[in-house]
Amino acid sequence: MDHADPRLIALDWGTSSLRAYLLGRDGTVLDEFESDKGASRLKGEEFLAAFAEATSGWRERWPALRSLASGMVGSNVGWVEAPYVACPASVEDLAGALGEAPGEGPLIVPGAAQREGLPNVMRGEETQILGVLCLQPERRGSARLALPGTHSKWVDVENSRITRFDTYMTGELYAVLKAHSILGRLAKAEPAEDRAQAAFERGVRAGDRLAPLLFSARSLVITGQMPADESLDYLSGLLIGEELRCAGASPDVLVGEPALCARYQRAMAALGMAEAPIIDAAEATTAGLFHIAEQAGLLA
Amino acid sequence: MDHADPRLIALDWGTSSLRAYLLGRDGTVLDEFESDKGASRLKGEEFLAAFAEATSGWRERWPALRSLASGMVGSNVGWVEAPYVACPASVEDLAGALGEAPGEGPLIVPGAAQREGLPNVMRGEETQILGVLCLQPERRGSARLALPGTHSKWVDVENSRITRFDTYMTGELYAVLKAHSILGRLAKAEPAEDRAQAAFERGVRAGDRLAPLLFSARSLVITGQMPADESLDYLSGLLIGEELRCAGASPDVLVGEPALCARYQRAMAALGMAEAPIIDAAEATTAGLFHIAEQAGLLA
Repeated sequence: MDHADPRLIALDWGTSSLRAYLLGRDGTVLDEFESDKGASRLKGEEFLAAFAEATSGWRERWPALRSLASGMVGSNVGWVEAPYVACPASVEDLAGALGEAPGEGPLIVPGAAQREGLPNVMRGEETQILGVLCLQPERRGSARLALPGTHSKWVDVENSRITRFDTYMTGELYAVLKAHSILGRLAKAEPAEDRAQAAFERGVRAGDRLAPLLFSARSLVITGQMPADESLDYLSGLLIGEELRCAGASPDVLVGEPALCARYQRAMAALGMAEAPIIDAAEATTAGLFHIAEQAGLLA
Repeated sequence: MDHADPRLIALDWGTSSLRAYLLGRDGTVLDEFESDKGASRLKGEEFLAAFAEATSGWRERWPALRSLASGMVGSNVGWVEAPYVACPASVEDLAGALGEAPGEGPLIVPGAAQREGLPNVMRGEETQILGVLCLQPERRGSARLALPGTHSKWVDVENSRITRFDTYMTGELYAVLKAHSILGRLAKAEPAEDRAQAAFERGVRAGDRLAPLLFSARSLVITGQMPADESLDYLSGLLIGEELRCAGASPDVLVGEPALCARYQRAMAALGMAEAPIIDAAEATTAGLFHIAEQAGLLA
């Protein structure tokens, strides 16, 4: 670090975790910090304390460094609200509407909102999307990105702008059904990996519409046609399969946690859909924050 | 009751409640009892105690009366398991496979299982369906019944037999999403009835597939296009609308709790689907139990 040339402190500050990065030339990660101090667990002064814990070492050493955050920290239940920017949204639009945390706090990237047709909102993903357009400039003209997660986003990009998007609650549905519905009660252990994969693909291919299929994650077990321990992988396949069928075609790129993206790749293969490459969400986030900071004149 | 001529003690013993009926000639209800001692809350000897609490007064007065129960009391987590009868299932099939509770306990109607194609199971609904065929003999040749509830059943009947059926977890999905997902957090109060109905119908008509619509129960509020207190009625409309679109056409009759069936009627009207009459589930249950008891030679 003695020879480091830091340009920006970048924060990926979501609902359940906080990741801080010290970024150098071209957005290279020089150092990083992670804590469980997500926006949903903090209020008032606790945001400033969590920010200090993550970044004060860097800021003491390089006092001129600016900080830029994205994610739920800028929501109406976060540190300070950075109101949604309307789609179509570009880097310039987002960089021109940064929120400002009090005191020594970071600037905050606003989320993006779709107000025409079915309304929709994102917060954090807009930064990843702009990061992808930096990492893979060939996507800037026209691309479709899928960002699997708790609330998966499927996003259309045209001329470097986020033009429209859909949200699928796939990850939250899985978590809620596993923890709180009758479908979560059968599996007492995890099956071996090969059986888990086969059960997942069986779910992906089970049928065309989720609603009449969902209960089969129970009835297949009750009627002796599936071991109980496979039922949650099958359920995951049902839910991801529905997301992919509704989306209709493969995205040009998958952006997210790599293991989850690989799960989507397996589901796409099981449905005979085209392959799509993966970009790690962490890489997309730092690239996006660096690019927005550059546009806003925040780089050291 | 002095001039009553009781023929059967009928028990509708589900997951969360126990309803007992003293039935007279033609299945007329002479007396009834209700408690919250559903099968999920009892184990071992507690079943016999709950049964005694509900029926011992009647049994002491008319010692020759037999008792017949349907519902989750006959499941593998109930009092005694009455194994599923395979579809196609008739009154004769069910009456010939009654389970037997120990001691002075009731006989128990088995559930019905569909083992071909997508497997499926029901327990309690089979009795209601056979009850409908008693109450409305014109349905016996060929009919489609919808039984809205926690796990809605859509059932095809041919020649007085349950031939195939689907399960929709609509009621449980609503309850779980309301209590445990991000969609349940916005509404702090119930809207006035006219706004509740309009929000419900807006959900029913929101689109063709649920998966990309579900999040709109939040995003419409976040973007100022729906008052927060309407979001749960809208969600209910989304879920019931999906069930109806997947089912594809109106049933010949709705069987269930009358207020819930009326909700389905409103959704069907909003989608331009044909009208369907309602049969109260309680009436269908007692008719079904009486009919099965008659077939099994249990009537006094």
